[in-house]
Amino acid sequence: MSKTSRLHFLHNRPLDERQLVNQFDRAVIVGVGLLGGSIGMALRARKIAKQVIGFSPRGNSLETAIARGAIDASADSIAEACRGAELAIICTPVQSVADFAQQCFAGMPSGLITDVGSTKQSIVAALAQSPVAANFVGSHPLAGSEKSGVEHARENLLDRKLVVITPDQTSDAIRVQATEQLWQSLGARTCRMSPNEHDAAVARTSHLPHILASALAAATPTEVLPLAASGWCDTTRVASGGADLWRQILEENRQPIVAVLEGFVGDLQQWLTALRDSDGIQLEKLLLEGKKKRDALGN
Amino acid sequence: MSKTSRLHFLHNRPLDERQLVNQFDRAVIVGVGLLGGSIGMALRARKIAKQVIGFSPRGNSLETAIARGAIDASADSIAEACRGAELAIICTPVQSVADFAQQCFAGMPSGLITDVGSTKQSIVAALAQSPVAANFVGSHPLAGSEKSGVEHARENLLDRKLVVITPDQTSDAIRVQATEQLWQSLGARTCRMSPNEHDAAVARTSHLPHILASALAAATPTEVLPLAASGWCDTTRVASGGADLWRQILEENRQPIVAVLEGFVGDLQQWLTALRDSDGIQLEKLLLEGKKKRDALGN
Repeated sequence: MSKTSRLHFLHNRPLDERQLVNQFDRAVIVGVGLLGGSIGMALRARKIAKQVIGFSPRGNSLETAIARGAIDASADSIAEACRGAELAIICTPVQSVADFAQQCFAGMPSGLITDVGSTKQSIVAALAQSPVAANFVGSHPLAGSEKSGVEHARENLLDRKLVVITPDQTSDAIRVQATEQLWQSLGARTCRMSPNEHDAAVARTSHLPHILASALAAATPTEVLPLAASGWCDTTRVASGGADLWRQILEENRQPIVAVLEGFVGDLQQWLTALRDSDGIQLEKLLLEGKKKRDALGN
Repeated sequence: MSKTSRLHFLHNRPLDERQLVNQFDRAVIVGVGLLGGSIGMALRARKIAKQVIGFSPRGNSLETAIARGAIDASADSIAEACRGAELAIICTPVQSVADFAQQCFAGMPSGLITDVGSTKQSIVAALAQSPVAANFVGSHPLAGSEKSGVEHARENLLDRKLVVITPDQTSDAIRVQATEQLWQSLGARTCRMSPNEHDAAVARTSHLPHILASALAAATPTEVLPLAASGWCDTTRVASGGADLWRQILEENRQPIVAVLEGFVGDLQQWLTALRDSDGIQLEKLLLEGKKKRDALGN
């Protein structure tokens, strides 16, 4: 990467918004769906990459991706996609990220490789003993949706979203910085966490909510669905996410998830006790705790 | 009501949309918040009531309600509000609905009295032995929000929303029909259910989601809230609802809620078992059940 990419200041912004930005001659998106497609659009629109090449493991969606302006061209293989590339962003379901990182590394051994996976520890661990480790910097843009596919991609999906970067002791400091700059140049905010810290946090903020939404949707008998109003719809919205995608996330992060789900079942026992006892004071206390936490975040 | 209200056809609509519509000289809204205020606005805009009088148990929000066009005038007492009125809609928290229905009945013994309470069985039961029973028809517009207060009221809040009408054996058939026509004339759809059926259904579609949203919000440590993205926000949105309002709902409907919450805790044990066993097939099966049910409803 250091050979061909250029760090420079963007002078078309106000002084206080100046930031270091990478420019890449060739960037590769592996997996051109909602996130991969949106990243491709932003890379092109913001001129962060001169050329964006898309590769799709199943070969689908590439024509749509070109038509929608998410990529400049497609490749038939990872090797072809990575030839001459300086940046690869792997946007596939989490269980294939480490394997694609290895494949990308073979084609661009001096490049920067990052991803968008919802779990980080298993990916970083899988690469730790490999030479890829120094080229790979884990990323997780908190910009998912229950929608999927490049047809829902949009250039501004990352705007002001938080991207968690998860370097570890094997990470190359220059590439960690370049990864942060990459996401910032695409409009996002960034923060650093260890892979373990990240996985424990998203077990609470993303994976537990998904399980509750899915279990709630499944538990609702079809005959009462006509009475489902906006509350039910909001609470269950994420349950429409891809089942294969989410099965992989839950498998990869199962230990932190088991811990928070066990804790949550314990919390529900408190609600059951208060309801069985008609304990209005305790019910209102529980409701206030939830309201206070939710109100703190706003819309 | 039969003395002064008029059933007639609305001729300014296409033939196939003609419907019987009540017109009321004077309608009373008890509790002018989000729902009461929105109903007042719709009653006035659609000329269903010539005059809308607001009464607020705590005396607050009435000036705002007048300023926002939710009511024509306010009254200092239920007796004053109900003098000469033909319709009263009680929009207070559920535990005070039956008492206000009694008070309205004293002031308008031939009128139609309905409500917007989220539970129905306890209200209908409280009135069953009273002469009010023939005048009261329970209603539940599925149009709530985590927002509250007349400042969020809007004329079209009821548009295409479902209102459940819960007549029982004591209900007067003419008034049941008039109640349906009332809600339809305000833009809503209606259906009839028994109070028990209604309460069992909303325990699943509304009250369980509220408990999960509230418990999830409360269970999320403040230090990971910066990682809460749209999934967490959607899943917990209803937790911002008023704690006193929801405490009353949970108390009034506690038996059906205990039953569905016990069932839900059992469902979560299935997820825990699948996670502990790394049973990907079972996890994907559970995720697919949720996705299928959620996808069936759309946005």
